[in-house]
Amino acid sequence: MAEQPKAGAGLRGQSAGSTALCTVGKSGSGLTYRGYDIHDLAEHARFEEVAYLLLKGKLPNQAELDAYVTKLKGLRALPDALKKVLEQIPADAHPMDVMRTGASMLGNLETEQSFDEQQDVADRLLAALPSIICYWYRFTHEGVRIDTVTDDASVGGHFLHLLRDEPASELHARVMNVSLILYAEHEFNASTFNARVCASTLSDMHSCVTGAIGTLRGPLHGGANEAAMAMIENWQSPEEAEREIMGMLARKDKIMGFGHAIYRDSDPRNDLIKRWSRKLAEDVGDSVLYPVSERVEAVMWREKKLFCNADFFHASAYHFMGIPTKLFTPIFVCSRVTGWCAHVFEQRENNRIIRPSADYIGPEKCDWLPIEARD
Amino acid sequence: MAEQPKAGAGLRGQSAGSTALCTVGKSGSGLTYRGYDIHDLAEHARFEEVAYLLLKGKLPNQAELDAYVTKLKGLRALPDALKKVLEQIPADAHPMDVMRTGASMLGNLETEQSFDEQQDVADRLLAALPSIICYWYRFTHEGVRIDTVTDDASVGGHFLHLLRDEPASELHARVMNVSLILYAEHEFNASTFNARVCASTLSDMHSCVTGAIGTLRGPLHGGANEAAMAMIENWQSPEEAEREIMGMLARKDKIMGFGHAIYRDSDPRNDLIKRWSRKLAEDVGDSVLYPVSERVEAVMWREKKLFCNADFFHASAYHFMGIPTKLFTPIFVCSRVTGWCAHVFEQRENNRIIRPSADYIGPEKCDWLPIEARD
Repeated sequence: MAEQPKAGAGLRGQSAGSTALCTVGKSGSGLTYRGYDIHDLAEHARFEEVAYLLLKGKLPNQAELDAYVTKLKGLRALPDALKKVLEQIPADAHPMDVMRTGASMLGNLETEQSFDEQQDVADRLLAALPSIICYWYRFTHEGVRIDTVTDDASVGGHFLHLLRDEPASELHARVMNVSLILYAEHEFNASTFNARVCASTLSDMHSCVTGAIGTLRGPLHGGANEAAMAMIENWQSPEEAEREIMGMLARKDKIMGFGHAIYRDSDPRNDLIKRWSRKLAEDVGDSVLYPVSERVEAVMWREKKLFCNADFFHASAYHFMGIPTKLFTPIFVCSRVTGWCAHVFEQRENNRIIRPSADYIGPEKCDWLPIEARD
Repeated sequence: MAEQPKAGAGLRGQSAGSTALCTVGKSGSGLTYRGYDIHDLAEHARFEEVAYLLLKGKLPNQAELDAYVTKLKGLRALPDALKKVLEQIPADAHPMDVMRTGASMLGNLETEQSFDEQQDVADRLLAALPSIICYWYRFTHEGVRIDTVTDDASVGGHFLHLLRDEPASELHARVMNVSLILYAEHEFNASTFNARVCASTLSDMHSCVTGAIGTLRGPLHGGANEAAMAMIENWQSPEEAEREIMGMLARKDKIMGFGHAIYRDSDPRNDLIKRWSRKLAEDVGDSVLYPVSERVEAVMWREKKLFCNADFFHASAYHFMGIPTKLFTPIFVCSRVTGWCAHVFEQRENNRIIRPSADYIGPEKCDWLPIEARD
């Protein structure tokens, strides 16, 4: 009989199943996708290669990768009914609600009829999610109905192209590539676990992904890079940043973008995105946001031994590329959908419905009280 | 350190948190909501009373119940944008995809901006979900745009009224009342647990409910009464039913509507709905479906010691009321949304992000292989 965890303990440290997809912090600070180190992937791979690795089980050879990129390019158009739905969503909606509704609507129009279709459904979601968010964004913010089909080779390039109506520079496409690789997969994080719980009832892929998007929406999960941005953009100099951070620490305010539920000493993704944030700062001639970010990192380490997680330098990196802050978490979705779908495949492969128990803390048996006898 | 469960074991028997809402099988076969026995609730209560009990924490007095019913009646209209979205969903869509998309869309239009609004958001979902499914159903199947506002006192009566364009008989409203009570809450079942995982990131109520709908959609969870109906409607006599069931058992086919993950000897909800199914059979003069159902129950017990769960006699009961089979699981949603929301309140009250670990079964560290070197 397993020892009972404390109420509210969030299953921390308890195994909820097995996976061949990912190790997190296995040797202190590492991250691997199907055995490949995140440093190798971020340095050498294209995101589409990583998506292939996660979804198809191995790194593709050149012919396989070419065919996969061609396939994804062919899946960027949105059905008219989906576009009409996106046009009904107001400009001030939460962009994650838009993503969630878009993925759910797609499930009505292109329902996964059998698990034999799961690879195609995953690829379609991967290709279409950037189209969904950008179609809604540009319709509601600029009043244009964009054509979501582009010839961009990469998912990240496609996203930036739709968002800004021009092809991305090589540098920006490169940064998006790294960013999407870093966010692609992270074992049994809350949104992925949510997708697996859904999959365990043998529900369809769109239900799994829709629920995962809703879970990633939470400020304790996907919203950290947006929160970090909202914080650092207030400060005009490293000195001001240090003063404000010290004040926040004194008031015990929550500071987003630091620490991690699993990693203890560092987040291996931080160095990888930080390097690109610095390059982008040079590219745009920034002399405020990057130095402010570096100072915040130094103060948090000095004062609290808290390290930047993947989210902190993503904030400045995305900002330097002109991406509106409220689209940061939707980009996370465009990447993590690969991990979610790969986990759904795994859950289906060796399934038992995920149905834990609970510790009962309510009243003992109550006798029925007729309504006229109640206070 | 907790003992590790086996891969794919679905967290069975492991506590994933605490609840004051429900006990399942605590004394062998019982079910209680906040301490009240399901038999008392099904016999004496109105569903709106049970919803109040789950969502507000106590049984209402008459004034509170009256005010609550009036509030729910006032929340049945759908925003125009949501109606337009429902009109974009084809007639052959899966009705649970419609429910999921409707709940998600509502979240764009009436976003929960703060947890202070959670009671109102839950009540709105409870009142609006029957409107959502019936608006879509009658638009796509009958070509009419219905007014979803009715003066029916009960949620079940409102649903039947919208579906059939006339107020429900007293008997039908009574059966819907019992049915909605029986389905309202069931501890950490998969859809509820899915909602709690989502809530644990501090995401919004619509995300939690949207994900729960997608989870309930799975054939291992919410689809059992539909599957039972699809089976029993094929048989013209108890003798044929017995012959066919014996054949299915011999072939080891899965027979839906029997057994339970937690209950061992019986499902306390079965007797309660079976009684009403029999009354409805008398009401419509049925001489086939109910006797067939009873025979299936007897054979399954005789051959396998498997008992009917809540779903089995729901199939015939709903059928006798003229409800299309594909709307059975959406009715489950209209009820269980009370349990889901009450669990979200609980999770938020004592939250830690639900982030379990996994047993790694993938490859050891792999060296990076340049694409030209791959097979």
